[in-house]
Amino acid sequence: MKLVGFRLPGEDRIRVARLEGSTLTVVTDVVGFWQDPSGWTASGPAAGAETFDLTEVELAPAVLPSARVICVGLNYRAHAAEGSFRDEVLPPYPTLFARWTASLSVSGNPAPIPSDEDGLDWEGEIAAFIGSTLVDADSDTARKAVIGYAAFNDLTSRKAQKLTSQWILGKNGDNSGPLGPIVTVDEVGDLREGLRVQTRVNGTVVQDGNTRDMIYELGEVLAFISRTFTLNPGDIICTGTPAGVGYARTPPWLLHPGDTVEVEVERIGTVTTPIVGNDYRYGSSAAASVRSEASVAIRVAQ
Amino acid sequence: MKLVGFRLPGEDRIRVARLEGSTLTVVTDVVGFWQDPSGWTASGPAAGAETFDLTEVELAPAVLPSARVICVGLNYRAHAAEGSFRDEVLPPYPTLFARWTASLSVSGNPAPIPSDEDGLDWEGEIAAFIGSTLVDADSDTARKAVIGYAAFNDLTSRKAQKLTSQWILGKNGDNSGPLGPIVTVDEVGDLREGLRVQTRVNGTVVQDGNTRDMIYELGEVLAFISRTFTLNPGDIICTGTPAGVGYARTPPWLLHPGDTVEVEVERIGTVTTPIVGNDYRYGSSAAASVRSEASVAIRVAQ
Repeated sequence: MKLVGFRLPGEDRIRVARLEGSTLTVVTDVVGFWQDPSGWTASGPAAGAETFDLTEVELAPAVLPSARVICVGLNYRAHAAEGSFRDEVLPPYPTLFARWTASLSVSGNPAPIPSDEDGLDWEGEIAAFIGSTLVDADSDTARKAVIGYAAFNDLTSRKAQKLTSQWILGKNGDNSGPLGPIVTVDEVGDLREGLRVQTRVNGTVVQDGNTRDMIYELGEVLAFISRTFTLNPGDIICTGTPAGVGYARTPPWLLHPGDTVEVEVERIGTVTTPIVGNDYRYGSSAAASVRSEASVAIRVAQ
Repeated sequence: MKLVGFRLPGEDRIRVARLEGSTLTVVTDVVGFWQDPSGWTASGPAAGAETFDLTEVELAPAVLPSARVICVGLNYRAHAAEGSFRDEVLPPYPTLFARWTASLSVSGNPAPIPSDEDGLDWEGEIAAFIGSTLVDADSDTARKAVIGYAAFNDLTSRKAQKLTSQWILGKNGDNSGPLGPIVTVDEVGDLREGLRVQTRVNGTVVQDGNTRDMIYELGEVLAFISRTFTLNPGDIICTGTPAGVGYARTPPWLLHPGDTVEVEVERIGTVTTPIVGNDYRYGSSAAASVRSEASVAIRVAQ
């Protein structure tokens, strides 16, 4: 089952729907969904549930505002060897950095290049969605808590990322985390089976990796995290990007306004992002996060 | 005006109230508050607003689930000189790391020590709350966007923080970010005037700093961030900790179960945290974040 978040034009509330072709069949509101993600992914929409066509709705991340978006850096050997950490010994633990949900977006939404950047860099990857609470979990339990996956682009402001030792400024640009639809785990299987992850810029392949080459396996990463903080339903793990990012090329290659970048993951699908200039930021919603929470609010109380 | 978030026992909805003595006077729900923070801090509660006594309610952070909690590391000279960055040149930009709102807590709530840690470390500091949208702002505009401050303890899992180059795992332990009440800016003034920041463990002073010694001024930090991503109403900046943290002492001194740590900030107030063992994590709410969002939901629709 493929799941998307959506709102109707002029409305704030976000709901989760099953997507088949261009038809959305409503499952429930986004808060309700993450209160019982395993139940909803098992049952799907109720009989006689409301339907919409893709042309009638605005897609939105099917994500809780409070979800943690935990990103694994340096998780494919060839990528770890190409960037500014290439001369360092790989750490014996996954390198984790943070995105806030305020940086998330969906396929088709433009991503602006911030004022001081020469462009944005691509990082095609797979986002995994957690469906249950994990406290000091073992890796098998943790792996089984994943309820679905989405194609994800960890669009990066490299200058901001590299200004200091900590990366998060450059990892949270407006609309810089586009997510494709969530595909439930029954249709994807285990990342260890090997899924192709490909990134294309204006149609040219720039990354072509396989999850078989991951250094840190997803279940192990989740188990590791759960020993320090409790993972909640709705939390998201971005599993890292393969080799081929732009800044490590000779000469460097970054995304500019007018470019289109796509991330395609085998069995999971594609997320597409048009790149725009910084001016876009002046026209965006003044309080997008508040809007999103109000939307959550209205639906639940009905 | 002093503002707190609260819920009634058995209810999920979070509301914002003015606190005077032990009396809470309801202002509005937490989403409504952050839709017009300047308006609500100017007007305060409506005439005839509902009141409660502190003994009747459960305090909760007056924070949007989607808020970004942006922490400034190494922001007091003497602290930058005491820890593992002591031999490095100070970067010309503020070092920023991320907390998710899921790590936030309030005064009196226990903070558990994760499984693999020898204890928790204290970092007393000031959290600043943003009241308007900032895109490529200058530092004067950015400073004026601050609507209030709270005492904050950036309780740190040092082992997890130092496992890799990125700090965020060790900065997001369960209940590891206790916030005191928000005190509106009219009662605090400008941090450049010099506010004393003191941390005490079981009554013994362990940090005693002054905001006069900050390296990066708050308005400048906000302006800097806003050049990469848009700051939204409700976003929080934690302004860094002065010297005196536990891990940098000889011998090291960490918090253990049974300890109580307090952060007191001049004109702003105190936040107190009892330290407990990892077992506490097994008894906490299975889906605290979902609960918090549902709470937001119910109130807004009324």
